[in-house]
Amino acid sequence: MTVQVAVEPVTRNETGIAEALPRLAGRFGERFAQSEAVRRQHGHTLTWLTNQPPDAVIFAESTEDVVEIVRVCADLRVPVIPFGAGSSLEGQVNAPGGGISIDFSRMKQVVAVHAEDLDCVVQPGITHYELNEYLRDTGLFFPIDPGAEASLGGMAATRASGTNAVRYGTMRDNILNLTAVMPDGSVVKTGHRAKKSSAGYDLTRLLIGSEGTLGVITELTLKLHGIPEAISGGVCPFRTIEDACNAVILTIQSGIPVARIELLDALQVKACNAYSKLDLEETPTLFLEFHGSPASVEEQSVAFGEIAAEFGAGQFIWETTAEARHKLWKARHDVYWSAVGLRPGAKAIATDACVPISRLAECVTETAEDIEKSGLVGPIVGHVGDGNFHVTMLVDIGDPGEVERAAAFVGRLNMRAIAMDGTCTGEHGVGQGKMKYLAAEHGDGLAVMRAIKRAIDPDNIMNPGKIVVAV
Amino acid sequence: MTVQVAVEPVTRNETGIAEALPRLAGRFGERFAQSEAVRRQHGHTLTWLTNQPPDAVIFAESTEDVVEIVRVCADLRVPVIPFGAGSSLEGQVNAPGGGISIDFSRMKQVVAVHAEDLDCVVQPGITHYELNEYLRDTGLFFPIDPGAEASLGGMAATRASGTNAVRYGTMRDNILNLTAVMPDGSVVKTGHRAKKSSAGYDLTRLLIGSEGTLGVITELTLKLHGIPEAISGGVCPFRTIEDACNAVILTIQSGIPVARIELLDALQVKACNAYSKLDLEETPTLFLEFHGSPASVEEQSVAFGEIAAEFGAGQFIWETTAEARHKLWKARHDVYWSAVGLRPGAKAIATDACVPISRLAECVTETAEDIEKSGLVGPIVGHVGDGNFHVTMLVDIGDPGEVERAAAFVGRLNMRAIAMDGTCTGEHGVGQGKMKYLAAEHGDGLAVMRAIKRAIDPDNIMNPGKIVVAV
Repeated sequence: MTVQVAVEPVTRNETGIAEALPRLAGRFGERFAQSEAVRRQHGHTLTWLTNQPPDAVIFAESTEDVVEIVRVCADLRVPVIPFGAGSSLEGQVNAPGGGISIDFSRMKQVVAVHAEDLDCVVQPGITHYELNEYLRDTGLFFPIDPGAEASLGGMAATRASGTNAVRYGTMRDNILNLTAVMPDGSVVKTGHRAKKSSAGYDLTRLLIGSEGTLGVITELTLKLHGIPEAISGGVCPFRTIEDACNAVILTIQSGIPVARIELLDALQVKACNAYSKLDLEETPTLFLEFHGSPASVEEQSVAFGEIAAEFGAGQFIWETTAEARHKLWKARHDVYWSAVGLRPGAKAIATDACVPISRLAECVTETAEDIEKSGLVGPIVGHVGDGNFHVTMLVDIGDPGEVERAAAFVGRLNMRAIAMDGTCTGEHGVGQGKMKYLAAEHGDGLAVMRAIKRAIDPDNIMNPGKIVVAV
Repeated sequence: MTVQVAVEPVTRNETGIAEALPRLAGRFGERFAQSEAVRRQHGHTLTWLTNQPPDAVIFAESTEDVVEIVRVCADLRVPVIPFGAGSSLEGQVNAPGGGISIDFSRMKQVVAVHAEDLDCVVQPGITHYELNEYLRDTGLFFPIDPGAEASLGGMAATRASGTNAVRYGTMRDNILNLTAVMPDGSVVKTGHRAKKSSAGYDLTRLLIGSEGTLGVITELTLKLHGIPEAISGGVCPFRTIEDACNAVILTIQSGIPVARIELLDALQVKACNAYSKLDLEETPTLFLEFHGSPASVEEQSVAFGEIAAEFGAGQFIWETTAEARHKLWKARHDVYWSAVGLRPGAKAIATDACVPISRLAECVTETAEDIEKSGLVGPIVGHVGDGNFHVTMLVDIGDPGEVERAAAFVGRLNMRAIAMDGTCTGEHGVGQGKMKYLAAEHGDGLAVMRAIKRAIDPDNIMNPGKIVVAV
């Protein structure tokens, strides 16, 4: 189920690894794992990149544990790869040079909730579902919701977002500060809990999206939001994907503060109907949600309704109960699995283009035509309010011709997004899979990124072989 | 009118400067200025730090001009200091090692307005007033409004904010990408126009707040917002500053999306009455503004009114006309000048503490007591919705005892804010004046900042002697 897709080679430091393993095994006992199964599970499973397992996995329980691990690894120049929930999509947890995977599944504590400041402090292993479950009685919630049951540490590391980002922003906007163990074992807290600061370089934002290549996140202070007084939403079918996109564009341009506006193409709706037991018309469809006071929610939905009508939308189906809404958004979050169900045995590979909103219809339409022409199966789903959409390609990994066509399609899509003044990744990150597009996307900026990587991690032990090449 | 406040010494490279000046003079002709008056005006004037003029000022007209200047300076290891409007407050435009000030007053162009994507591209010399004047007919506006008529380049460089930040965020949140000339003369565009991206390190946010110490900003892509359908606002008097702060805290905690909520203490109100010809009761007062649909604005003001009543507020005075509102906010933006009017001949020195909202009342109250005890004159004004407030100390610079008391007061205030999990600077930046607090605020993070500075600017030519010491 894996295929060789070229990634940057990272040299294994056999001597250092051989010395580090017994040292760390002695220190961490039963929390040090070296079985083939555990190691492979901590290499990457959700991509078509080769699985590259670490040499060992350590289940950390504190920042101090991480400091100890990093110090040993720094001393012996052994790679350190942070592992949250393993749901990243570009090879971020692979270990191309071997080394130690630090597993955060035992660091799920909510350290503090400062309801009076609308923030909380958490350990990196907790998932966004778990956090919101914990917060339930406070009247507050954390809005960032990638499809996967991802850990907050991983979400910070990949600058993740999800369906609510159109209204609440991404991880970039919802983290007040981070605690991170740096490559020399020092512990850095990147800021305080004031809502804003001009005190020096923005280390918080530098670590967000750095995918473990600059430091290991061991604590996060997150912004929280009040659960809206009123929530309403539903689904709105369109005749064409272009009409649906144009309705989204006008909604955003009109400044309607929609909380969620998600596109599913006809094939994805079909997949959801089958997997999530929905009963929707199999046509391009928007899933929507509005947050606010009852009056504001009503205003927003009326304004959206007028726009949808302009683009020939069918009957908007309101979901009035929390249960019905939950079912809908559960289906939305399960699109990866429902897409997989469309072609059993195939590998699902998600793309992640993001373009300025004015180019959305054009980019999605051209991409849909490209899928068709390439003879690929790939439903489209997207956080279209942000100009971000995913093709979930379903690829028969045993068919080299199909793999090649799929890879070529991904390349065209990424370059199309970049050419439209957009990005090859709106929220999944670079990892190993997208390194080859960074030169096109960033030009001379890539050299600045490399200089930063070299300065902070001169021995290249922090998640090597990801985002930028250090040398 | 200046006093020696210790700043980091920066060695002058006499040989390099002597060689650079004729080379640049020859190249830039009448755009190269070396008169004493122009040089002093480009050193810092709005602080109590020593004026340290550059050796020459060049009026840039394009990114290419900046590249040429930086290349010559890089070649000869001569400092480069970007100069926008000169309104920064911590010595950011001083030239402690001499060198070349790049003046952006001839780079005020709006390069593009992408109304369909709610963004625009501008040169760094344009001020926020000029930009909004330009945008007037588009129905869009740029919300960040520091008190000064600051340039957008300077606002980005200091991570500025202002009265609207409580709703619209700071410069950090309102810039899509930057173009910057790096210390080696390379031109980096930090991103594209997609609303979000996970493609590598966040160079945009790294440059925002870097105060010219990593690169020179020559173009900015800014997020724009629709001018709200309805705006309402006015002033609300309180009996005590603590009551006013507590009303703010509860307003923020309740999630009322107030667009502006500004505190003026009794002394500041008195100053505004005199300078801006207002007729307000001289008591702690909040200036407020609500943005939204007519229904939402009404909802917000009713909700705020209930909170204000809980804290014994006096009569809320609504300003129903745009003219009256304009007069009010003009007065708010002129507080620096009105404060100066309270004590003619004194120097106004602004502090900039910012704390988590729950600590606001405590921090402001303790600070007010400290002003009193210290025998200083210092009205208080603040973007209190963000937990940020300024004391505009009016200091007789000719009185060494008073200067010493004022400096000690600033030190206590900054450490108080840091101890409350806040920051010594919410929006003014570090410059020369706040370098000494960064160790207390950032701990080991300061070493990371230094590593970044060294990596990107190894010869320390970019605005040396600011934020971090490079060596």
